[in-house]
Amino acid sequence: MRYELYYWPGIQGRGEYVRLALEQAGADYADVARSDRGMAAMMRMMEARSATPPFAPPFLKAGKRVIAQTANILFYLGPRHGLAPKAEAGQLWLHQLQLTVTDLVLEIHDTHHPLGPSLYYEEQRAPAKKRSAEFWKERVPKYLGYFERVLKDGGGAWLTGRRLSYVDLSLFQIVEGLRYAFPNHMTAFERGIPGLSGLHDRVAARPNIRAYLASERRIPFNEDGIFRHYKELDA
Amino acid sequence: MRYELYYWPGIQGRGEYVRLALEQAGADYADVARSDRGMAAMMRMMEARSATPPFAPPFLKAGKRVIAQTANILFYLGPRHGLAPKAEAGQLWLHQLQLTVTDLVLEIHDTHHPLGPSLYYEEQRAPAKKRSAEFWKERVPKYLGYFERVLKDGGGAWLTGRRLSYVDLSLFQIVEGLRYAFPNHMTAFERGIPGLSGLHDRVAARPNIRAYLASERRIPFNEDGIFRHYKELDA
Repeated sequence: MRYELYYWPGIQGRGEYVRLALEQAGADYADVARSDRGMAAMMRMMEARSATPPFAPPFLKAGKRVIAQTANILFYLGPRHGLAPKAEAGQLWLHQLQLTVTDLVLEIHDTHHPLGPSLYYEEQRAPAKKRSAEFWKERVPKYLGYFERVLKDGGGAWLTGRRLSYVDLSLFQIVEGLRYAFPNHMTAFERGIPGLSGLHDRVAARPNIRAYLASERRIPFNEDGIFRHYKELDA
Repeated sequence: MRYELYYWPGIQGRGEYVRLALEQAGADYADVARSDRGMAAMMRMMEARSATPPFAPPFLKAGKRVIAQTANILFYLGPRHGLAPKAEAGQLWLHQLQLTVTDLVLEIHDTHHPLGPSLYYEEQRAPAKKRSAEFWKERVPKYLGYFERVLKDGGGAWLTGRRLSYVDLSLFQIVEGLRYAFPNHMTAFERGIPGLSGLHDRVAARPNIRAYLASERRIPFNEDGIFRHYKELDA
């Protein structure tokens, strides 16, 4: 089956967590909005009266099914591609971790958009500075400290033990993104999370991921996405 | 099996979506942090080195399992208590809707905490006013308009058709909470979403929910929770 991924064509955004899973799995997929059919196809899908209409991209077409919400798409893909356990208990544990990644991603987005997603960054620079400072003081230590501890207590190479899962791919993206957006902060902070740094490198070294990152399929970070580099927020 | 729910004892918060599901199901559960064992038991659980440590409350103890993240807990409880379909496709669709509720709940929280959860409201009044204005101008119409459309297109009494699900309970809480926090805005806005207003009333009229809302188990809304009434944000 050839999957169809629908997501905004110019950014990594929330779609990137799905792309990384599809790439690691070596799955056959079209990144529809980036293809010749382009945005028109995505907008048609969003306006169509389907049985399971998405609220927003990303969404995945898998045969006749349309599945939205990043963590939900990963929950669906995981056990089908060896990126999640087969048993329910393991799947829920992995999903619990992914939903915590989701919360973190939202807080990362809010560092540059504290007044909401409908105003431009330029309209909220001062509050963005305050929110970014709080983010590094309180939130990053809480989130990344938690994942570092889970990794350490698990005692394996990957977050949930000896097998790579979609959560590892997402944590790679978190580390990579924070390095891009906040190089000063992250350089200092990463000394305290050697486990996650190592996990990042192990994900980057996987052949399918390495090939993906070197390809044109990987959209570069930019200032329209979730991870944005604004010097004034990284002082 | 007697469930144990762990959540902050003084607020409805994210735990409320789980409480509503447990109450509607008539499930046997202890709201641990509100019981004699109190907060100490919850903190012990959070510090314990378990196989599936929660990042934050709420979490549910079900036998030997510990499950965190509101939407994940509902995903687990749903099919076990007749609040979700048995088939995978239906479960993922319901979960997709619940994750959209989760996104909305975060945006509601951000109306009074745009600079982040670690500062007091009093430290962020001005940005809270701006964020609240954007919230009502852009975000509420997008979110509640979406749910209104799903309800209408489904053609049933409940969001996903003819059977009550945990998402209906969550949408009841959203309507109830927005009425509490933003009475001026919500009175005007609700005229445009007759479907969701009716759904709210149908949920409130279910015998188990009615009994719950009238009991001491239902914590009143207050200004420590997610839905807070600050007059200046509802001008």
